[in-house]
Amino acid sequence: MDKRVTIIDVARHAQVSTTAVSKVLRNAYGASPAMRAKVQQAIAELGYRPNAAARGLRGQTYTIGVMIPELRNLFFADIIDGITAQLGGTDYQVLIAPGCNGEKEEARVIDAMTDRSMDGLILIAPVSSKKRLTEVARATPTVVVGRHGSSPTYDSVTDDDVVGAALVVDHLADLGHRRIAHIEHHETDRVRLAEMPNAQRANGYREAMTRRGLSEFIDIASTSYTHEGGYVGAKQLLTRAERPTAVFAGADVVALGALEAIAEAGLSVPGDISVAGYDNSALASFGPISLTSVDQDGRQMGADAARLVIGRITDRERRTVQVKLSPTLAVRRTTARAAPHT
Amino acid sequence: MDKRVTIIDVARHAQVSTTAVSKVLRNAYGASPAMRAKVQQAIAELGYRPNAAARGLRGQTYTIGVMIPELRNLFFADIIDGITAQLGGTDYQVLIAPGCNGEKEEARVIDAMTDRSMDGLILIAPVSSKKRLTEVARATPTVVVGRHGSSPTYDSVTDDDVVGAALVVDHLADLGHRRIAHIEHHETDRVRLAEMPNAQRANGYREAMTRRGLSEFIDIASTSYTHEGGYVGAKQLLTRAERPTAVFAGADVVALGALEAIAEAGLSVPGDISVAGYDNSALASFGPISLTSVDQDGRQMGADAARLVIGRITDRERRTVQVKLSPTLAVRRTTARAAPHT
Repeated sequence: MDKRVTIIDVARHAQVSTTAVSKVLRNAYGASPAMRAKVQQAIAELGYRPNAAARGLRGQTYTIGVMIPELRNLFFADIIDGITAQLGGTDYQVLIAPGCNGEKEEARVIDAMTDRSMDGLILIAPVSSKKRLTEVARATPTVVVGRHGSSPTYDSVTDDDVVGAALVVDHLADLGHRRIAHIEHHETDRVRLAEMPNAQRANGYREAMTRRGLSEFIDIASTSYTHEGGYVGAKQLLTRAERPTAVFAGADVVALGALEAIAEAGLSVPGDISVAGYDNSALASFGPISLTSVDQDGRQMGADAARLVIGRITDRERRTVQVKLSPTLAVRRTTARAAPHT
Repeated sequence: MDKRVTIIDVARHAQVSTTAVSKVLRNAYGASPAMRAKVQQAIAELGYRPNAAARGLRGQTYTIGVMIPELRNLFFADIIDGITAQLGGTDYQVLIAPGCNGEKEEARVIDAMTDRSMDGLILIAPVSSKKRLTEVARATPTVVVGRHGSSPTYDSVTDDDVVGAALVVDHLADLGHRRIAHIEHHETDRVRLAEMPNAQRANGYREAMTRRGLSEFIDIASTSYTHEGGYVGAKQLLTRAERPTAVFAGADVVALGALEAIAEAGLSVPGDISVAGYDNSALASFGPISLTSVDQDGRQMGADAARLVIGRITDRERRTVQVKLSPTLAVRRTTARAAPHT
């Protein structure tokens, strides 16, 4: 097999010293236009690519690492679109570390990205302890997406999940629903109960139900933000003595699982039960599904995260910021007027 | 901000030389058990992480780069699950370069991964020229997934796309369908027409139609392997003087677009038209969609690709291999018996 072309090969080909090649590569003073032209021609002819690992030792690797909790949640694809669009035309390459499952695996993935000297990290909905995230961000410029709370070391980008949950409850209550149930992602950790979007959505649901005078109908199935979690959660809710007439699923992927369980039970959506999701991912707008869902504009969140991480790479002493975006509701065919109360 | 802990900090903390630390890190001879213990304690206490960029200069970065053409095709998530499962427990970290769009963008992404001294590359359905792929693989151990054809430098993993297309045509013909149309991904490049799965599926469709005596009903809408491509392709097919009774979409994501167009036209699936896809992705098995689809076992493809790339990192002189997996058909609710011929 051939070896990679090295700086030595370039120097030999251009008949100059390796120091001269290095100067040209670094855009340093002392490289004449003629020298520059000679070296650049040799680079082009040999197909030499400056080694990012070597650059890493000198300074930047021009790599932004993005950690996503799972590959099948299409909302994360929106965030990544926003990140790559924002970084388009720059020297930065986005590399995604796939699939974390809990704190331990997340620690391994974050270490792997730090080990590879990434210039910046964008962590999507991390579950690690706040202490740990604060340490990670102290060593590497970091933006946390989809987790609330301020930090002395990292920036954050979220939507207002309390407002998002209220949009759903108000929409359903306006349609005459009272038995509005919620499927949440089970959470016990005290800090995560304050900071994670899932916890804030559950709180927003409770608050909005109370504000609408529906506190007696608050009913939460506590599973997980997965297809399976939605399926199991809806099955639980369907066994209630008085069945809910509407289900607010904490994420679109959860709503899909719920739709599956409802269909299996021989019930129709929205005829028997209205269903709403959260994220307004590509699945929600897919015609045959046509799911009512909260739009938190993943592309904008991704673009903001990329802007912030580059800002922090440039100025590590800058104060941290929390960007909180206002969600909107995309009303589609899975929610409809409730049958008259019996 | 704090700086990263360096080998110098470790040496100072352990009160040994940096050479001694380096020996311990490299598992080299000449590091006594006592020295080893001292250094390891300092590493733990300081939270030192050996820098992968530095390792890269000496040899391996323990990084496998995976290029995927798009994030929203859930079949690719199956492949990545297979890759990460196969590499679980090893020192290798998978990093995904997202979203390529054509040859130029693909070249940029491959360069970015090569620049970062990745030990191995797994390229999913690359569209680059064969010459280019051969060169890439000469410099870095590479496995190509989802593209046929042998190469002197890279291994490949595919399913048998001709057989997969035939499974669909036979299934539909057995159900009494004759007007079986196909939505393909438009392709003009001569090499790609031989090597890309989409081209092989279209060929397999034509061959199977002919074998079943249905050559006069061969009807292909040539769009793209995207949701939009399926939507536009189905719209074209629905305007035919004699409408097809069945549509074989070249990928699940294409089938979803077709389902959307068919629903918009006020037609029912499978009552008026049967629809089948390819990939058996998570969407196909999702209850409310329940799409008949060819299963090419993405997890197995990913696991095979990971095994091959590690094998090639270990032994670069090994002959290249082509792994071709046999697809099966998952029959679900979107295909049914054709109405009697009029």
